[in-house]
Amino acid sequence: MRFVVDQQVEDIELPENLKLNTFLQEFHSDCPHSECSFGFYGFAFGQSPFPVPKIMQDALIKNADKGTYAAVQGIPELREAIAKYNKHYFSMDIDPKRIYVGPGTKELIFNLLEILHGTVILPTPAWLGYLPQIRLLKKNFHMLPTQANQKISPSDLRKLALRLHDRQKVLILNNPNNPTGLLYNRLELEEIADVCREQSIAVISDEIYAQTTYDFTKFVSMGKIYPEGTFVTNGLSKSHAAGGYRLGYVIFPQHALDLKIQFKKILATEYTAVSTPIQYAAVKGFEISDEINEYFEITRNIHKIMGEYVYNELSKIEGVKVTKPEATFYLLADFNHYAPELQAMKINTSQKLSEALIVHPYHTAIVGGDSLVLERTDYSARIAYVDYDGAKVYENYKKQKPKTSAERLEFAKTNAPRIVAGLEMIEKFFEKLKEEVANLSSKRDSLSVSN
Amino acid sequence: MRFVVDQQVEDIELPENLKLNTFLQEFHSDCPHSECSFGFYGFAFGQSPFPVPKIMQDALIKNADKGTYAAVQGIPELREAIAKYNKHYFSMDIDPKRIYVGPGTKELIFNLLEILHGTVILPTPAWLGYLPQIRLLKKNFHMLPTQANQKISPSDLRKLALRLHDRQKVLILNNPNNPTGLLYNRLELEEIADVCREQSIAVISDEIYAQTTYDFTKFVSMGKIYPEGTFVTNGLSKSHAAGGYRLGYVIFPQHALDLKIQFKKILATEYTAVSTPIQYAAVKGFEISDEINEYFEITRNIHKIMGEYVYNELSKIEGVKVTKPEATFYLLADFNHYAPELQAMKINTSQKLSEALIVHPYHTAIVGGDSLVLERTDYSARIAYVDYDGAKVYENYKKQKPKTSAERLEFAKTNAPRIVAGLEMIEKFFEKLKEEVANLSSKRDSLSVSN
Repeated sequence: MRFVVDQQVEDIELPENLKLNTFLQEFHSDCPHSECSFGFYGFAFGQSPFPVPKIMQDALIKNADKGTYAAVQGIPELREAIAKYNKHYFSMDIDPKRIYVGPGTKELIFNLLEILHGTVILPTPAWLGYLPQIRLLKKNFHMLPTQANQKISPSDLRKLALRLHDRQKVLILNNPNNPTGLLYNRLELEEIADVCREQSIAVISDEIYAQTTYDFTKFVSMGKIYPEGTFVTNGLSKSHAAGGYRLGYVIFPQHALDLKIQFKKILATEYTAVSTPIQYAAVKGFEISDEINEYFEITRNIHKIMGEYVYNELSKIEGVKVTKPEATFYLLADFNHYAPELQAMKINTSQKLSEALIVHPYHTAIVGGDSLVLERTDYSARIAYVDYDGAKVYENYKKQKPKTSAERLEFAKTNAPRIVAGLEMIEKFFEKLKEEVANLSSKRDSLSVSN
Repeated sequence: MRFVVDQQVEDIELPENLKLNTFLQEFHSDCPHSECSFGFYGFAFGQSPFPVPKIMQDALIKNADKGTYAAVQGIPELREAIAKYNKHYFSMDIDPKRIYVGPGTKELIFNLLEILHGTVILPTPAWLGYLPQIRLLKKNFHMLPTQANQKISPSDLRKLALRLHDRQKVLILNNPNNPTGLLYNRLELEEIADVCREQSIAVISDEIYAQTTYDFTKFVSMGKIYPEGTFVTNGLSKSHAAGGYRLGYVIFPQHALDLKIQFKKILATEYTAVSTPIQYAAVKGFEISDEINEYFEITRNIHKIMGEYVYNELSKIEGVKVTKPEATFYLLADFNHYAPELQAMKINTSQKLSEALIVHPYHTAIVGGDSLVLERTDYSARIAYVDYDGAKVYENYKKQKPKTSAERLEFAKTNAPRIVAGLEMIEKFFEKLKEEVANLSSKRDSLSVSN
């Protein structure tokens, strides 16, 4: 039979991570050059490369027999551990009753968008996961392009909110930020919170990268600044390198009792609860322990070293503007300086730029601007710096911590040869581009002379 | 701040399992009788009482280190194993490409309802999970009350479909059936399939209880009868007693390529993938092995023994009509014979009947009619028969298999004392009810005489 699909489903695009996957498979399998058999330089996928902390693996092993359904909102031990985790690391006093556990932060954000009435405000550039959710839910939404500093401007936020006539608006704040790697400081958050209070804006604060903040003392949760209006989401994927475990949590705003009941209905209606053995494993991930603390310290330091290296190398390429990451394992590289050359070579969109970079001889995978909810013609790209053997690099770091900046540079070079080589490819790409365009125009010149 | 919730969320009721949970907690904690400290006789919750098969636990242990994201549609090994499982047990030739894995069958049914256009036809009585999903998705739906035999009437289905003007309709078929424990035979499925072909009805065939079919040779999947229009869903929750693992699958209809792409978008947008270690554990659950096969045989035999016992005991109560279960661990008991007495005692709804049965001295938990999408005044109830120590009973069965019907009766009595006692309570309840009503009316008579 011929099936009929609901329109809002047809309307959403394939989420960008899937599109990217298909795209990479396609291009790679097409490459006729045998020397390219290693694949591609992976600046596209954002997945922590480290092993899941041993203490969590052990807890999963110990609880493999837990076959019964867990409570919808999460097992009490886990919510208790998450509350203490937030107290210890983020100085927040959270009643465990305000915490709900879900099968990944992504699903929880989807569920929040399902229940929260009002237009969604999406600052751009943005993580590639939010927009398909908003589209699938047929929610009204408005982009909020960030300023030159790549951060939300409170006055722009106010202006936009004043134009919206919903009783409630919903801002998606991603801090630390994917794709820029930037961190909002306390003052910036306070200014945003002021506008939110004034304009009835609820905030979904996606803080999945909080624990990766390089100078960890600098991280401030929006849940602290705007506790009455913020839904903080976080999980195991980035901090604990356990994206595959699928477990996230949301902290509800203070005094949101009725809303929690609505949310519980949604979770029970859609997926019952998170896998019980996984929840027990997560308890050990969120409990305060030396092992976990050391894990956070080492992994964030490695991210920092790689981030510095990538930032420095890309900054050396003439005209390229790069965000200086303070957290995450991404930065945003702005190649718009080369717009004239790219256009001359018929590379008219960011998608075309991604394609030009993935083919032989560059084989470099990036996430182009339109996947970051930027204009199609914006030649910005997210550069992830996790393409190395996480287990090995973790051990190397533990054995000998690089201290001086020379040691840190050396550490990056030794431990992440593919990142080094991939960046050289990007550099080479733009060099070649300039050359080719120069050739092209001198040819044109000579043609017009001879005519 | 005061949050605004979208209307369709407000509109859905608390899913019945949650409502029940709250209800039971509330009533139990209120009971002032210390002898009731053991809780209540649990005929309400439907959860397999057995341990997760050892082979699956071992696989989970072995794969605790799998922290990376899995493919959206499921890891290849798992889809391959599920295909072979369907071949071996259900004689279906399924290309693994037709299989998608999700975090529980419930979520997959939700996702199917999300993408499939058209009015949903829901036969009643029904599992308590479908209706909140339909409501949350704001889908049009129609009930299809079953006939006296508690099964879908093909001619009623045709009549209903003729009244609907959608290009496509969606029938939710639950076979074997929760709450009745009944099984559709091949002929019945063929008659339904004929109507579906004729009336453009897509079928979501929820076959989560397939493996519990007592005489397993009798089970026929709708996917075999109507392969071009059926989405078969199944999972680990009932057959493998691993509801807490949260893993289900859907088999797409033949030739539904475009639809699979739409579905993949939905999964990637909402939850990325199922927990990776859990997927590896599931591989061992679906792979053909003597261990798993023995597990299926033993567990379905125990369900059968308990089902027979409960069926026989309830049938002995005067006027009570009971479905004779051929699968699952439920049956439907119809207490409408007592409607006059119940009404006389102001027990006017099935909800009131549940309340009357949960309080002292009965402490018997059932799922009342309105939770099964029946009329509020329909005194039917789902009786689950899993209130025993599954691990112990499994071992007892293995040690000495009851063969004769006397041995089977003895097995039930010895191994499920709470079921025995709970059924006595139900019997006592209706005896008392009759007595009290008789007293009431004789009092009334004497009053009217003395007046």
